[in-house]
Amino acid sequence: MQELGTIETPIILTNTLSVSTAMNAVIDYSLQQKGNERVRSVNAIVGETNDGGLNDIRGRHVKNQDVLAAINNAKEGMVTEGNVGAGTGTICFGFKGGIGTASRRLPASLGGYTVGVLVQTNFGGVLEIDGVPVGEELKKFYLNNELNKPEDGSCMIVVATDAPLDSRNLERLAKRAFMGLAKTGGIAHNGSGDYVIAFSTNSANRILHEMKKPLQTFELLHNDAVSPLFMAAIEATEEAIINSLFAATSTTANGNTVDALPMDKVLSILKKYNRIK
Amino acid sequence: MQELGTIETPIILTNTLSVSTAMNAVIDYSLQQKGNERVRSVNAIVGETNDGGLNDIRGRHVKNQDVLAAINNAKEGMVTEGNVGAGTGTICFGFKGGIGTASRRLPASLGGYTVGVLVQTNFGGVLEIDGVPVGEELKKFYLNNELNKPEDGSCMIVVATDAPLDSRNLERLAKRAFMGLAKTGGIAHNGSGDYVIAFSTNSANRILHEMKKPLQTFELLHNDAVSPLFMAAIEATEEAIINSLFAATSTTANGNTVDALPMDKVLSILKKYNRIK
Amino acid sequence: MQELGTIETPIILTNTLSVSTAMNAVIDYSLQQKGNERVRSVNAIVGETNDGGLNDIRGRHVKNQDVLAAINNAKEGMVTEGNVGAGTGTICFGFKGGIGTASRRLPASLGGYTVGVLVQTNFGGVLEIDGVPVGEELKKFYLNNELNKPEDGSCMIVVATDAPLDSRNLERLAKRAFMGLAKTGGIAHNGSGDYVIAFSTNSANRILHEMKKPLQTFELLHNDAVSPLFMAAIEATEEAIINSLFAATSTTANGNTVDALPMDKVLSILKKYNRIK
Amino acid sequence: MQELGTIETPIILTNTLSVSTAMNAVIDYSLQQKGNERVRSVNAIVGETNDGGLNDIRGRHVKNQDVLAAINNAKEGMVTEGNVGAGTGTICFGFKGGIGTASRRLPASLGGYTVGVLVQTNFGGVLEIDGVPVGEELKKFYLNNELNKPEDGSCMIVVATDAPLDSRNLERLAKRAFMGLAKTGGIAHNGSGDYVIAFSTNSANRILHEMKKPLQTFELLHNDAVSPLFMAAIEATEEAIINSLFAATSTTANGNTVDALPMDKVLSILKKYNRIK
Repeated sequence: MQELGTIETPIILTNTLSVSTAMNAVIDYSLQQKGNERVRSVNAIVGETNDGGLNDIRGRHVKNQDVLAAINNAKEGMVTEGNVGAGTGTICFGFKGGIGTASRRLPASLGGYTVGVLVQTNFGGVLEIDGVPVGEELKKFYLNNELNKPEDGSCMIVVATDAPLDSRNLERLAKRAFMGLAKTGGIAHNGSGDYVIAFSTNSANRILHEMKKPLQTFELLHNDAVSPLFMAAIEATEEAIINSLFAATSTTANGNTVDALPMDKVLSILKKYNRIK
Repeated sequence: MQELGTIETPIILTNTLSVSTAMNAVIDYSLQQKGNERVRSVNAIVGETNDGGLNDIRGRHVKNQDVLAAINNAKEGMVTEGNVGAGTGTICFGFKGGIGTASRRLPASLGGYTVGVLVQTNFGGVLEIDGVPVGEELKKFYLNNELNKPEDGSCMIVVATDAPLDSRNLERLAKRAFMGLAKTGGIAHNGSGDYVIAFSTNSANRILHEMKKPLQTFELLHNDAVSPLFMAAIEATEEAIINSLFAATSTTANGNTVDALPMDKVLSILKKYNRIK
Repeated sequence: MQELGTIETPIILTNTLSVSTAMNAVIDYSLQQKGNERVRSVNAIVGETNDGGLNDIRGRHVKNQDVLAAINNAKEGMVTEGNVGAGTGTICFGFKGGIGTASRRLPASLGGYTVGVLVQTNFGGVLEIDGVPVGEELKKFYLNNELNKPEDGSCMIVVATDAPLDSRNLERLAKRAFMGLAKTGGIAHNGSGDYVIAFSTNSANRILHEMKKPLQTFELLHNDAVSPLFMAAIEATEEAIINSLFAATSTTANGNTVDALPMDKVLSILKKYNRIK
Repeated sequence: MQELGTIETPIILTNTLSVSTAMNAVIDYSLQQKGNERVRSVNAIVGETNDGGLNDIRGRHVKNQDVLAAINNAKEGMVTEGNVGAGTGTICFGFKGGIGTASRRLPASLGGYTVGVLVQTNFGGVLEIDGVPVGEELKKFYLNNELNKPEDGSCMIVVATDAPLDSRNLERLAKRAFMGLAKTGGIAHNGSGDYVIAFSTNSANRILHEMKKPLQTFELLHNDAVSPLFMAAIEATEEAIINSLFAATSTTANGNTVDALPMDKVLSILKKYNRIK
């Protein structure tokens, strides 16, 4: 992707040991799309985190048809958060993690662009919510995944924007998402394969798989106009991570139990630090 | 791998659309190894080239058991070259490509280390052998893969050495392998996902998956001593690519025929340019 | 440095248009060191931020002898913070920035290593102190440097540790410093040439400029033991940035005035959010 | 440059210990350009090789006015090659190196674009000319710079094209220049700080230092059309390096003598290998 600057497939999120199954299904899916009858190369995009604490990950229970069903049932609109899909078994800051999403829209004077972020949260650290030391107050110092093995923690971050950015500025945008992760108390510990993919949905700049003509016209945002998008990506990532925790529910599976963030206590702590009334 | 500096699995070479199958099998294999009963994360290493000209690649005929058989039947000693394994359907410089291998051993005064290279050749350009313009003489200007689609060409290069190099110097060694490819007339055209992986077999520096103690002693080669290894990697890569062409045999498959390098003509050309008698 | 994994000179911090002067002086200095009589190559390390708001930067007032004096007068012990050296004219979050420093020492059970951070703060964003929205409360939204030109903001971060890390893990440590910057409200806006250099002072692993013998023994920390160092780097960077603001004093120069952080108001805000009593 | 995707200044080539002087002069020059009265940041681009064998490099004889004179006297048209400018003291493959240049123009059917390359040659290896083992025949095995210190060898490569490429494809083009270096027998030995900068002169895609409006229209070449440019860059780099050797003349300086490539012998060797009549 970095070499060619394009993405070709849906983005699949799953667990570490099901990456090959997900790739397999994406390849099947792509080959079968109308118009792809002669396609002989697919760069499947699959992200993963390791949910071996709550999931019998070695059992490799995700099957081809599960991935195809996920693609085929994907729809526009509100995204379900929490214990869903690849977030079903994740653990974050010692609490039940999951899928989270958030977005920011720039004011019209700055282009009116939207930055949307979706995360799959499975990492350690000491939780901070809006700057409040929630993990410290709850005495939840989850520096390595104690339940998962140390190598098991990471965060997948997908950043989408309708701003007309080229691959260079998309890569810069992706790097800022890590800054949002930092603000939640994540430390990107060893073994954390944190990964961000950023793409633009701006249809004017769509790059066709097969070149129709050698020159293509692009309308691209100037470097000097990207800072507000950077801030949007930081904020949306931070919020998406917190949302994943708020939406997740306590889970017992694979012989282990992981509690959801205790909302009543969290609200008290946010009050104590005067962040909410 | 770049992040952690280690490799955990056998290296599998296959075709583009079978990468997921190969990963799948490597994961199965790794989970089943004795001592890995509690392993919950596998970074499978799979390389690929696109053999969609001679192979019904969309049929995805490589199966899990084929990959497992390849791993289980792997043995020490001479490597079979040419139309074998992932090299069965590859095309290189417009001729039948395949698997090739070569190595260099440094003199004892420079450490006596060995650099071995294995390649899977499937790329375009205008063939040069030992500096002789063979492709030009044979009027084989294969700048894009005409039979394969333009996106289909690339070269997988595996570099192994017993020299005690750390990940930084292994990465530098890997980059030099591209220089060997250049010397055969390759141009790393668009769509060429050329990829090199370099590793050290030096057992003194083996890194255990699970840390036994925080500090480990390494004995590493000084920067000033690596240049001869760089030269060895360049030479061995160049020779391995040529060997893959010399060992490959003409192939008809998938409705297409690709001829092997015409050895009689090649020998004449090498004589014409006074490279052999 | 990334290629060779070593640093050869003192690290100099200055303003954008004095980088060449600083390099010049470092080269002079290095050539004149005893034992360097035959040295013919110097990789000078110079960091910079743009202080064109408070400094007549186009006047290029830093001279060779200033840099040499800085090197020669450098001493161990407490580091002066605030409006000093390259921090004299910096602006951070709209307040007077400067030089800041902080460190963390790991408990003996984790190796007892120290991570020290020094920063030169000259960037935009909305200030947060220990998670408290100080910038928001003070209505100081400094997303681009209004006084400086938009391209003018950045943060230099120097990370030193006595932990025995190789260049790969030092690079990982360096990346974590950005996470500390994120926690202060920095957004790494366009034009921010934020830069981190991390090095190990561990004398056992010192690499000599000229190789004495080809093999050198290193004692290095295992990947699984680096996470506490990552956390230390994040925390120390965050604190060093805040320290730079606390130590800086209001400055009028170059026709502009930049106020120091109003400490009384900051303390009130920290109290309001129950971070201090 | 990688971060922002633009170049702002003339590109200066000099020796290792004069980089700071060259930067200094470029900054002076840029600040004084009409229209730059308010510019407060300059990313000077300076390349270097180490000519400490033939040059009293520690004497640092290049002065500000020399660099300014070079910029002011630069003119269009034929480039002087050989012992000129930063090439005055360089050594390549054990022979006198220098400045070299070459270019390729694509046929109109492929866009008619030109790729021009300029090199400053100061590196080791065993010389090959058009595939002919000239170094071997002349028994000049110059694996490290014996006269220069081992760390002293490298090659600066400047690639210019009028093809409308964005920064991503320019970076890919730059990488191909190394393949041209490989074809001359270079091995990118340890200490070789080989460096390539590639830029597009396509005025339609010029990026202004200060944004006039947030969106800019670009006309860019599709990935599928870049391969011929890659081949052009490889060929032009190879030829430019050979040209630098052909144009250079024997030099005695700094107490050392380095002979030019012996043209009569080279011609004999090229004849022996039937490359010329």
